[in-house]
Amino acid sequence: MKFYDCETAPSPRRVRIFMAEKDIAIPVVQVNLREGEQLGEEFRRLNPDCTVPVLQLDDDSTLTEVFAICQYLEECHPEPALLGRTAAERATVTMWNSKIEQHGLAAIAEAFRNKARGFSGRALTGASNFAQIPELAERGRMRSELFFDRMEALFATNEFVVGDYFSFADISALVAVDFAAWMKIGMHGREHLQRWHAAVSARPSASA
Amino acid sequence: MKFYDCETAPSPRRVRIFMAEKDIAIPVVQVNLREGEQLGEEFRRLNPDCTVPVLQLDDDSTLTEVFAICQYLEECHPEPALLGRTAAERATVTMWNSKIEQHGLAAIAEAFRNKARGFSGRALTGASNFAQIPELAERGRMRSELFFDRMEALFATNEFVVGDYFSFADISALVAVDFAAWMKIGMHGREHLQRWHAAVSARPSASA
Repeated sequence: MKFYDCETAPSPRRVRIFMAEKDIAIPVVQVNLREGEQLGEEFRRLNPDCTVPVLQLDDDSTLTEVFAICQYLEECHPEPALLGRTAAERATVTMWNSKIEQHGLAAIAEAFRNKARGFSGRALTGASNFAQIPELAERGRMRSELFFDRMEALFATNEFVVGDYFSFADISALVAVDFAAWMKIGMHGREHLQRWHAAVSARPSASA
Repeated sequence: MKFYDCETAPSPRRVRIFMAEKDIAIPVVQVNLREGEQLGEEFRRLNPDCTVPVLQLDDDSTLTEVFAICQYLEECHPEPALLGRTAAERATVTMWNSKIEQHGLAAIAEAFRNKARGFSGRALTGASNFAQIPELAERGRMRSELFFDRMEALFATNEFVVGDYFSFADISALVAVDFAAWMKIGMHGREHLQRWHAAVSARPSASA
């Protein structure tokens, strides 16, 4: 297997932390997003969506999309289980991961890519170019704050996203919170979120 | 178990078709989205995201998010497998479902909810109100057309989304194509997409 990564990007970091928790080591290829390598012909053949991460399997087939990659790795390396230990828990982790992707990661990306100067004309990932929409940057920021409020309320009662079980949903939420810091959307005044963030950041996997 | 549904909405239809393929029968509660029942206090206690579908389990816990619900149902009713038969196939179905959600269903929803008169002030699902953004309606329409082009190219070589295996990814794509018809984004001139659409629409589950 081969893992196509970019050290500075939030999405592949989710998989890197997941692999670190499981002690999985796979040869890594760095893709230079800053120089647009993901838009070049060679990478496009690997992933027409021009995104990292990509997991290339031994038969040369490829998996893209973070959750799909982690699902595959979980089946190959079941311990420790990060996607749930029972049918109901697995579905609950999937549900929370989906909520965090839509209301956290996507909202933060909306705020960031519709505003940051370096992303002018590149408001979305992918092969096509889309102009920034200032109203969308603003909406993304509002939605990110709502997401932080929600996480604050959740961690007032839960040790982790799914009760007292550390799961992939925590990894997604950690990457979302660290991504939001780029936009100065922060944890200020949210003490439960801070407590959780300190705990998950202290795990050795967080530096992956 | 109990299934919270809305007969006219695309998202719960994905689960209804999934259940029909597996011959699963669960008591159904209709939620009247047109009258805003999903925003009322009672429903909000069930799902703070104010969306259908919701699957309520026998212990009264709830699952929201289409893919999470289907994952749970697949574990309880494994046959016929609609989420893949091997680890690699399962990850591939998840990957395609994710691509169809992001580039199909979300793009079509962007086009629809930012334009339709009845969704003024309700450009997003959820408890908060967000204004329509006309540029986003336009972008959604462009992205939907790109998605249709991509499906046309895929079905030029594939019987179904994942090779010759009918899966949940086909169900998501079918619901996306039928949803897009509301916006008159159609299959015109896309013969492979038409061939696939006719085949999946002819399955008894499609009327669910």
